[in-house]
Amino acid sequence: MSRISEIHITPIAIVDPPLLNAAGLHAPYALRTVVEIVTDDRIPGISEIPGNSDIDAALEEAKALLIGRDPFNLNVIRQVLTEHFGTESAAARGDAPWDQRKLVHIFSSVEVACLDIIGKITGRPVVDLLGGKMRDRVPFSAYLFYKYEGAGGPLEFGTDPGATGWAAARQAAALDPASIVEQARAMCGEFGFQSIKLKGGVFEPRVEVDSMLALHKAFGPNVPLRVDPNAIWEVETAIRYGRELKGILEYLEDPVRGQENMAKVRKELGIPLATNMCTTSFGDIPRAIELHSEDIILSDHHFWGGLRASMNLSAICETFGRGLSMHSNSHLGISLAAMVHLGAALPDVPYALDTHYPWQSDEVIVGGRIQFEEGSVKVPTGPGLGVELDREALKKLHQNYIACGLKKRDDEVEMQKKVPGWKFKAVRW
Amino acid sequence: MSRISEIHITPIAIVDPPLLNAAGLHAPYALRTVVEIVTDDRIPGISEIPGNSDIDAALEEAKALLIGRDPFNLNVIRQVLTEHFGTESAAARGDAPWDQRKLVHIFSSVEVACLDIIGKITGRPVVDLLGGKMRDRVPFSAYLFYKYEGAGGPLEFGTDPGATGWAAARQAAALDPASIVEQARAMCGEFGFQSIKLKGGVFEPRVEVDSMLALHKAFGPNVPLRVDPNAIWEVETAIRYGRELKGILEYLEDPVRGQENMAKVRKELGIPLATNMCTTSFGDIPRAIELHSEDIILSDHHFWGGLRASMNLSAICETFGRGLSMHSNSHLGISLAAMVHLGAALPDVPYALDTHYPWQSDEVIVGGRIQFEEGSVKVPTGPGLGVELDREALKKLHQNYIACGLKKRDDEVEMQKKVPGWKFKAVRW
Repeated sequence: MSRISEIHITPIAIVDPPLLNAAGLHAPYALRTVVEIVTDDRIPGISEIPGNSDIDAALEEAKALLIGRDPFNLNVIRQVLTEHFGTESAAARGDAPWDQRKLVHIFSSVEVACLDIIGKITGRPVVDLLGGKMRDRVPFSAYLFYKYEGAGGPLEFGTDPGATGWAAARQAAALDPASIVEQARAMCGEFGFQSIKLKGGVFEPRVEVDSMLALHKAFGPNVPLRVDPNAIWEVETAIRYGRELKGILEYLEDPVRGQENMAKVRKELGIPLATNMCTTSFGDIPRAIELHSEDIILSDHHFWGGLRASMNLSAICETFGRGLSMHSNSHLGISLAAMVHLGAALPDVPYALDTHYPWQSDEVIVGGRIQFEEGSVKVPTGPGLGVELDREALKKLHQNYIACGLKKRDDEVEMQKKVPGWKFKAVRW
Repeated sequence: MSRISEIHITPIAIVDPPLLNAAGLHAPYALRTVVEIVTDDRIPGISEIPGNSDIDAALEEAKALLIGRDPFNLNVIRQVLTEHFGTESAAARGDAPWDQRKLVHIFSSVEVACLDIIGKITGRPVVDLLGGKMRDRVPFSAYLFYKYEGAGGPLEFGTDPGATGWAAARQAAALDPASIVEQARAMCGEFGFQSIKLKGGVFEPRVEVDSMLALHKAFGPNVPLRVDPNAIWEVETAIRYGRELKGILEYLEDPVRGQENMAKVRKELGIPLATNMCTTSFGDIPRAIELHSEDIILSDHHFWGGLRASMNLSAICETFGRGLSMHSNSHLGISLAAMVHLGAALPDVPYALDTHYPWQSDEVIVGGRIQFEEGSVKVPTGPGLGVELDREALKKLHQNYIACGLKKRDDEVEMQKKVPGWKFKAVRW
């Protein structure tokens, strides 16, 4: 029987454009942590999680709990990690949407790597370990951002003047409705996305609502639209501007902060609400059901404790008549592969999933960037995740991590470099 | 890749003693259906479900939907069966506790047999396909019944005068508190059970409550006790007699009929309530949570659509702070093995599981009857379920089925043979 014998934790920094959101600005590099687990019979499994130095330290700490264990025994692994790190209360997590939680991130990274190993041992893709493939392709949506000029990384302070198409749009500024429409055209043109999400919470609601109206005008009624103000609106603001968006939006994501406020807005507006900010853990579910704070939960296996936990979340949503879709952070192909396996196993995918992937240019897997076809990604058919670590790329991205000096995500600090004195506000308008 | 190529459906009749319950009397034989699925590369998987001729016919009908499919793809198998058979509403199910539901029984039988196959293909016990083993032994409780004299089957009309110990108790009449205590002593002596459940709903509440008081006196405060009136009590009856049982019961199972009534009794009594009658499907869960109709759901993979669905139910219970334990019907070792794999994978087993197994004397697996050690069953370690079909035994039990002439369970008809004119009442006292 294979046993876990090595765990390699590699923080990496990946080029990330200056994307704006309610919390501030993306740094020129986004941090991820690549986890590689190797069994005593030399079977490797990999995963990728949102990185920071605390998580990396906790993963180091977890090694002693994991070495020698059977990678199939995820129930026991979950138990020992829970006993060691403890579950985190919602109150302890803080306000920021990227709030790092140790236990779920660590268990997610270990579980996905173990599922990769199990898949390799059994000769089966990860989707088969989640009950099997319901679809061959998993649809994603275009994920638009207001942004400053620049493509991140070495191009932080300038752009590539020769770029065309999406490469040009990716580095162009987008600070008003017209440039958001351009960004959408370029992104949909390149990747074939058939639905569109705008990350909002950046400008006053008028600008963001006008951006949605412009997208609706440009793309017509057959392209589902969503906007995510990142919980920065007041209830009254959400209701006032939400009314303008009625009939235009597929769903409105996190217009306001907190389950009570979401429930109020939902009741008043009659537009489906989605969340990855008010209901973000199993501990939040009972109150979410009681209040009916949202219609759609945006799962994220990195934040919910892995792929099997996400399947449990799907069963809960099915049982209580809630929809399920998927949230994303800046990520590379290991996470995308895991998201695609999960998306392929879900009983239903009524909403195209979120992904930041088009905004990234780096890759850490053999074969380079994963391709989209008509906005969808084909489910990998190889054993496990079906993607392999490119060790040269990993080395280079780890060098980036060392060189860039970032230790955790802090969009507020990045924003202050552009707008001195800028402060994050949990509720702004 | 292995594909399902054969499905064998064998109805069997197993010797069952004249056990009493709210619905009447067990017939001399209980019906089960053994399902064997074989892949094109000759890997067999087995399962066992509550049998009747309708279920068997539906399984025949399901064959065409299943042949040629990948046994790993349980998500698609669930979907095609759901599309074909449709989900059943609670209203359509009727009053009887053994109400047969096609879809969940069929999917359960197919899923367990496929998990057996997957386990054999991957060289892993079924528990590992549910996330891995949390414990090596799964605890069960003694399951007492009021009963007439006789051991069922060929001994229906008489007893074996040479029997001693449990064999004697199994055929003895038990119609009052004193004989129930004797039955408990014999059963616990034989199997080592460390908690005790009495199937009630047979006699007027006074007799049944006195039986529990007698058990409490005989076994002391360290043996958890439960009684199951099978939902036959009025709310007032449950509250009045429940008060007498406060401090004596680990939980009170289905004292009354319906979620609203359960919630009333629960609020009034303050004794934990368990159910396998008021909340019996995922469709019943939202209202159960809203009303808080019970504290503990007694799962049953035959009734909830398989082992993975039962793991989903466990996740729901964990999320909403409900306990989970397990219901049983008369069954053989294939079902017991499946129950043990599930019990081993559950995050927690705070309540010993129910099983009718001690009441059965037949077996259909190689090696004969599964042994209990101190009331627990060791988790099989072989690939898949870890039990194999004994073809000679299967043949004999199928002959029993043909010979006994029973086509479905009907405890009312059996009871009328003893008490002419006896009628099932949904609520009696």
